[in-house]
Amino acid sequence: MNISITKTTTPKPKPDINNLGFGQYFSDHMFTMDYIDGKWQNAQIVPYQNISMDPATMALHYGQLIFEGMKAYKTADGSIFLFRPRKNFERVNVSNERLAMPPVDEDFCLEALCELIKLDADWIPDKPGTSLYIRPFMFATDPFLGVRPSQTYKFMIILSPVGAYYSEGLNPVKIYAEDEFVRAVRGGVGFTKTAGNYAASLKAQTEAHDKGYSQVLWLDGIERKYIEEVGSMNVFFKIGDEVITPELSGSILSGITRMSVIELLQKWGVKVTERKLSIDEVMAAAENGTLKESWGTGTAAVISPIGELNFKGNAQVINNNEIGELTSKLYDTITGIQTHKIADDMGWTFKV
Amino acid sequence: MNISITKTTTPKPKPDINNLGFGQYFSDHMFTMDYIDGKWQNAQIVPYQNISMDPATMALHYGQLIFEGMKAYKTADGSIFLFRPRKNFERVNVSNERLAMPPVDEDFCLEALCELIKLDADWIPDKPGTSLYIRPFMFATDPFLGVRPSQTYKFMIILSPVGAYYSEGLNPVKIYAEDEFVRAVRGGVGFTKTAGNYAASLKAQTEAHDKGYSQVLWLDGIERKYIEEVGSMNVFFKIGDEVITPELSGSILSGITRMSVIELLQKWGVKVTERKLSIDEVMAAAENGTLKESWGTGTAAVISPIGELNFKGNAQVINNNEIGELTSKLYDTITGIQTHKIADDMGWTFKV
Repeated sequence: MNISITKTTTPKPKPDINNLGFGQYFSDHMFTMDYIDGKWQNAQIVPYQNISMDPATMALHYGQLIFEGMKAYKTADGSIFLFRPRKNFERVNVSNERLAMPPVDEDFCLEALCELIKLDADWIPDKPGTSLYIRPFMFATDPFLGVRPSQTYKFMIILSPVGAYYSEGLNPVKIYAEDEFVRAVRGGVGFTKTAGNYAASLKAQTEAHDKGYSQVLWLDGIERKYIEEVGSMNVFFKIGDEVITPELSGSILSGITRMSVIELLQKWGVKVTERKLSIDEVMAAAENGTLKESWGTGTAAVISPIGELNFKGNAQVINNNEIGELTSKLYDTITGIQTHKIADDMGWTFKV
Repeated sequence: MNISITKTTTPKPKPDINNLGFGQYFSDHMFTMDYIDGKWQNAQIVPYQNISMDPATMALHYGQLIFEGMKAYKTADGSIFLFRPRKNFERVNVSNERLAMPPVDEDFCLEALCELIKLDADWIPDKPGTSLYIRPFMFATDPFLGVRPSQTYKFMIILSPVGAYYSEGLNPVKIYAEDEFVRAVRGGVGFTKTAGNYAASLKAQTEAHDKGYSQVLWLDGIERKYIEEVGSMNVFFKIGDEVITPELSGSILSGITRMSVIELLQKWGVKVTERKLSIDEVMAAAENGTLKESWGTGTAAVISPIGELNFKGNAQVINNNEIGELTSKLYDTITGIQTHKIADDMGWTFKV
């Protein structure tokens, strides 16, 4: 499929690189294509602009909405790299399948993304910690109120220059294990990147914030016992010499940073186990001193050290609320590979 | 708050009253208001038109989307009635609270709806079985990609003249008890009318259709044993002389038609019980002949008789696949009250 390109005639001023924040500025162009009559068409890169939709557009009513999050980095020599981008487009189709949405051509999406990034290359910030956040997303577009899968869809990619996800920098965060609200359950859509998962999480997140915690630690919806995710990240615990992360049960996201952390740990000879892990086991390890480190993983924050865990009012400090050695090494290695400051011997980066 | 009214100068042609379908035609006007700076403002009725939104609008990414479904009926003397409309606007706020969205003023919303209906009164079809379907909905409008509740929202009401929900008329439907996919779980958002619940249901619905069933019977997400809803309706079973419906567990919708059926049955002296009800109990009752009738309840279909239930390949026909006596009486009574063909001694209708 050809991609028609219409360049902007009124480029926007670039935001202050020291105050990018996350996801609040958008580049000059966007990619869009439409699924009509059973096939993708109208692939185009156009100036970033509002979309016009009928108020009855199904996405706004029945939530067929999926998205991805990726990042592009500019290296010291001006090259542009993506991090394992095919994994994201594969996951688009995992989400699509569960949400009764049609698949996209993964190769074509990656090609379109590269075209878009090349056009907006001067939007990629190069200050340490910054990057170009990439948001592919797709939504149902039939103007229809019956409950059934939409027959038409729009797929888009927008770009946002971002600073570090946490404005306070790479500092340990306090997390609150949620025992009332549930994010997702086996048989549901928790393994997909669909909008509804995030909507369902906001009330607990708000309440945790009010208690002084920055993220929620989600427990499973069935026994309310097994750890699932932290906020919208996967989570790892180093207990003794072993690193443990919840297994992919169907209700948690198969994170690409999660996968990368596991592969790095294996390469480094660190024992890493994917299994059911109960909150009681983690709290006991915290109390007896064997819980050495804990961190969240995700595209936005990359690695987010956890400095305190509260479950039912029992607040346990982890590693003296300092960034652990392994946490730090993982952060440095992954961000180093992403920005090509260290050699990519994992074959993870993709040159645009 | 004042409602500014801008009338259309180009009224649309009315659709064929014999082929209205459901939710595919929309009236000449719509109501909209905006939540900005912590308060609702810009209340206006304007010609039905597309909405323009930034591609980063949070609703499209993180799913803060809630809606309601209601109906207006034109009676023989040309009066217009709503059915228990305050209950819907109360439920808007139940949904809003769970989705971390701000409340609306229920009285004002009802007033706005009445204004809108008066303006588009000639869009209310009067053929038996038809009505004006009303879709209030609300969504997050911040153009921002961080995961947090939006600070701005839009609330809208659109109107759609509809025929019967099932194009084949009031005939028993075949339902398929789903044992793989889950719609919602305790602690989640199953009791709200939020978009994500519907998105999560589509794959199972599609697979049931492919097997020749028109609706999915949802089981609970924890034990996969207790009956929750049917499709997007509540469900009732008459076993012996008792009518049983699943209790409001937190994962099912508190339906207004459900509530009305319970109140009618109580008035009629029929024993009606809200409790946990397992699929095994229902299948056993079907097999031993004590399952007399079953029906779904919802605003769109009102009462939907169930003629066959399949669980794990065991297909049980209910009441010879005919509409049961009580099912029929409920349908006639509720639709009779809605259209004022029979006296509203329940105080359910509301004159516009």
